[in-house]
Amino acid sequence: MALPKTNGPPARIQLQQVTPQVDCGRYPVKRTVGERVEVTARIFRDGHEALGAAVRVKPPGASRWSEEPLAPRGNDHWEGSFAVDQPGLWQFRVEAWVDRIASFQEELRRKVDSGQDDLAGELSEAAVLFGREISAEEALAAAADDRSGKTWSETYCVDVDRVLARFGSWYELFPRSWGGFEGVRAQLPRLAELGFDVVYLPPIHPIGHTNRKGRNNAAAAEPGDVGSPWAIGSEEGGHDAIHPDLGTAEEFRRLVAEGKEHGLEVALDFAIQCSPDHPWLKEHPEWFNRRPDGTLKYAENPPKRYQDIYNVNFDCEDWRGLWQALLDVVLHWVEQGVTVFRVDNPHTKPVPFWQWLIQEVRTEHPEAIFLAEAFTRPAMMTTLAKAGFAQSYTYFTWKNSRWELLELVGQLLDWRDVYRPNCFTNTPDILHEYLQHGGRPAFEARLVLAATLSPAYGIYSGFEHCENVPVREGSEEYLDSEKYEAKERALDGPLLPLAQALNTARRENEALQHLDGFTVLETENEQLFAFLKRRGENTVVTVVNLDPAATQEGVCILPVSTGLPPAYPVRDLLAGESWTWHIGRNYVKLRAGKSHVLRIGS
Amino acid sequence: MALPKTNGPPARIQLQQVTPQVDCGRYPVKRTVGERVEVTARIFRDGHEALGAAVRVKPPGASRWSEEPLAPRGNDHWEGSFAVDQPGLWQFRVEAWVDRIASFQEELRRKVDSGQDDLAGELSEAAVLFGREISAEEALAAAADDRSGKTWSETYCVDVDRVLARFGSWYELFPRSWGGFEGVRAQLPRLAELGFDVVYLPPIHPIGHTNRKGRNNAAAAEPGDVGSPWAIGSEEGGHDAIHPDLGTAEEFRRLVAEGKEHGLEVALDFAIQCSPDHPWLKEHPEWFNRRPDGTLKYAENPPKRYQDIYNVNFDCEDWRGLWQALLDVVLHWVEQGVTVFRVDNPHTKPVPFWQWLIQEVRTEHPEAIFLAEAFTRPAMMTTLAKAGFAQSYTYFTWKNSRWELLELVGQLLDWRDVYRPNCFTNTPDILHEYLQHGGRPAFEARLVLAATLSPAYGIYSGFEHCENVPVREGSEEYLDSEKYEAKERALDGPLLPLAQALNTARRENEALQHLDGFTVLETENEQLFAFLKRRGENTVVTVVNLDPAATQEGVCILPVSTGLPPAYPVRDLLAGESWTWHIGRNYVKLRAGKSHVLRIGS
Repeated sequence: MALPKTNGPPARIQLQQVTPQVDCGRYPVKRTVGERVEVTARIFRDGHEALGAAVRVKPPGASRWSEEPLAPRGNDHWEGSFAVDQPGLWQFRVEAWVDRIASFQEELRRKVDSGQDDLAGELSEAAVLFGREISAEEALAAAADDRSGKTWSETYCVDVDRVLARFGSWYELFPRSWGGFEGVRAQLPRLAELGFDVVYLPPIHPIGHTNRKGRNNAAAAEPGDVGSPWAIGSEEGGHDAIHPDLGTAEEFRRLVAEGKEHGLEVALDFAIQCSPDHPWLKEHPEWFNRRPDGTLKYAENPPKRYQDIYNVNFDCEDWRGLWQALLDVVLHWVEQGVTVFRVDNPHTKPVPFWQWLIQEVRTEHPEAIFLAEAFTRPAMMTTLAKAGFAQSYTYFTWKNSRWELLELVGQLLDWRDVYRPNCFTNTPDILHEYLQHGGRPAFEARLVLAATLSPAYGIYSGFEHCENVPVREGSEEYLDSEKYEAKERALDGPLLPLAQALNTARRENEALQHLDGFTVLETENEQLFAFLKRRGENTVVTVVNLDPAATQEGVCILPVSTGLPPAYPVRDLLAGESWTWHIGRNYVKLRAGKSHVLRIGS
Repeated sequence: MALPKTNGPPARIQLQQVTPQVDCGRYPVKRTVGERVEVTARIFRDGHEALGAAVRVKPPGASRWSEEPLAPRGNDHWEGSFAVDQPGLWQFRVEAWVDRIASFQEELRRKVDSGQDDLAGELSEAAVLFGREISAEEALAAAADDRSGKTWSETYCVDVDRVLARFGSWYELFPRSWGGFEGVRAQLPRLAELGFDVVYLPPIHPIGHTNRKGRNNAAAAEPGDVGSPWAIGSEEGGHDAIHPDLGTAEEFRRLVAEGKEHGLEVALDFAIQCSPDHPWLKEHPEWFNRRPDGTLKYAENPPKRYQDIYNVNFDCEDWRGLWQALLDVVLHWVEQGVTVFRVDNPHTKPVPFWQWLIQEVRTEHPEAIFLAEAFTRPAMMTTLAKAGFAQSYTYFTWKNSRWELLELVGQLLDWRDVYRPNCFTNTPDILHEYLQHGGRPAFEARLVLAATLSPAYGIYSGFEHCENVPVREGSEEYLDSEKYEAKERALDGPLLPLAQALNTARRENEALQHLDGFTVLETENEQLFAFLKRRGENTVVTVVNLDPAATQEGVCILPVSTGLPPAYPVRDLLAGESWTWHIGRNYVKLRAGKSHVLRIGS
């Protein structure tokens, strides 16, 4: 091992196990604006020197580092924190040093305390340390702020997002079923009143006509069939164009702007795939997968063929041109006021592409939020989150029993430093059989679960009407799916009052705005799923009857470890009723699919 | 985020979570010669390409990398291993790639299987891939060994030691109590017969006379007092000299060489401290802590003063000269044949110094083993191990109850990738009150615990005689401690037959040669401590009556999870008796301090 070429010996202070960090600092940890980042480290040295330590912090775009103290908590464990008050990529590192004055004072104090009276040698050292002759009393009283033998950790990053990246209620709608952009704009006051934060629109671009799919995904479209919005591009334009049936660019910008006035953001879909009529196929055939004979290859997953879709080749010779064009698409919509993007199937595109694209967008637009629609294996799902996606779809739709829900929440809690769930109750692709067979009670239970388990959740319109007919038995596709035809939609579903009550409860209870602070509660009935969430002084207990067919009774056991008093008032945020609950067993009886969402305290 | 300046886009394969690694690869993981290093990683890519992966390995001093395959185990988890057959610092990294041929074959196979008969496009791709016209049958049968889009992990290190670094039985003796080197040499056949692997000698150097401590650590020595071997150095020499009363350099070399013939290694003490008479104080006063007036500072821990000891200043201006001199001391003894060093108080010296010194020694002498005598906080103890110490003392002497032992073993198992315990039953500094008050039964219990819990253990001579009188009540120091006076010692203690039986059992049972494979067993009696150790086909159950005063009875419960048959023969390796034990409860009754060490199977 080579010794350093500098004059001094290597630093003696050991600085280890800095947290938070993800994969040895390869990826940033995620936080939202307004939070404090809790920093810990192991810091120690041989011998008895007094140490000091701090966390040095650089906000996004700043050129100077600020400092917050770290304090020793015993066993060489040091702790501190810093606040993040703006979105973007923050940097921090831990520094530690020897305080020679404090070290000297500690030694001198022990000698004075034990009655040693010959301090001539010690005071000769003090004279050197303080730069002047000094008495023992003066030396002991001096301020200790020396920093020698400084050591520092590597620099780690914190990716800070707006609060909306963590906490928000989404409503998904196909604008063609609502009268286009102007029709959607007319719904904004009501959507705001219902407590939604995001209106998410599937692709709004021109739809291809070559090999267009018909109603119910028929291989060939009938005349008049409108096609799938995900078959993007026609002679009328590609990813930066608007389908003429939906409205004008001006109307779109007005929708986005007026949404913001109501506290509602319009989220767009970003689906990197092209219909056979997309302008890029002619303008840039080199961006697509081609056979040796030069013909373009449509998408396949043998033996399935997707002849209405062409995928780009991220590794093509002009990959830089392709990547830049895709970035330009996103930046185009950012310029129209859109800062929330739901990304279609990101796991079938290269991870480094997403890392680059999201970072490019967020360097200039740190408020931008990307939601990953990736349903694949855990390694890819977490890696996309690490690579920059602020939110991610989850397996929530397929987790309906108590043990499935517990497994899901455990996984999400494990991932919480990088992966923020957005739990949709349904999507245009997923109508789970629990909803198909459970009727309205199933819809109510799932709505309460989504809204109370996950800080971000969403419903796809139709849910509030308890739409539950599949295209055929065994399929999760809707009959007469809105993906392939336009509907007549209105905000008058019977579940909207429940959604509104939940959204109000979410806004008024910080415990529901975070994933952690979660404790599962015993119910002595597998059909009753109960959990407690806590944030600061705010505690909410949710109990859901998962059985969509029958009333269930049981208990909800609040353990002493919750720190609650022996008896305490609870108020049901859905029904408005109040009771007194106790540490220990509380009797619970709920009709099919019904829930308590209980705020603890008055 | 800047894109790469190279022509191609960034690698799409994700390669994460490579194990084994310690602190993000900052330190090597530890293994011993003859083991296989199990390597795992998460490897995946977007899309459906077929991936391949391998671990690339470079033995110490080699210039070429060899390769072992990694195989997929599901969920993007890949596994493989490589053997380490020589001591020293090994390197490895994981590599992964796309196999374009296997990917093409997989797609083609699915098309053929589903009956697609127009394969013209596919075969035009095959022609490019294989470089010639090729039929579907040929393409499907071709060997798939293409490696494209290669990605590799960082390089990680494995520090490989001789087996003795993990597994060995130590006997500590002061040679001045045994007739010097020649007297110790006469004991070698008997020590070998008893099954010991290492004879560890406290410092063998000249002892200072200025401020020499007397018997029982008296402030002043009486005429004839021999002093502490840790007060190193006199006019007769320093750390590279031999105390003339012990013998000559020639006799020492003969002792070391003859030990090796008996399978016994002589371990030396390396204590970096100097008596006031050490030659370095005159030759190199600049290496020591000094007051501003130039006088040297003796060691202190206020209000305690150690006027017989001077510590070196590792940060002095000539630190390079000092560090090199200390390295030269170790290398001097290596040249005499010594390759095992017990290092005194390494935690009061800089960690980077140890990292440098051990690596310097082991680059040329990879067989060298350093044992850290550090009793301090966990962060420093583990860091010294990471920095290069092959073995470490533990808190074993202070862990006597069942829960204390379980806590200790849990910690040691947590640390097992870097920290190898050496459990001494006693040391010249530590006579625990359990031994002071427990009499022979306490000594027997502790001997069995040390020898069966830890692959490396040791006793300090006197233990086998059940010496247990402290200098005063409440002290862990021995009365008439051998640290300050010479004794008349002989290998005739009553516990030697037990030590011999244990050492034989350890050599014949691989389960006792490793720390892991440990399962605690329920006994329904806090005084009965039982555990199972397994390695391959070898299983050993130890049951110890921790009560030194009374017979205890209880059960030893072997759970189904051990995988043992419903009933099986066991043989007591101490008493020689055989029984039949069962899954479930086995009745156990043991007299005070007695144990079973049961080998499972015939």
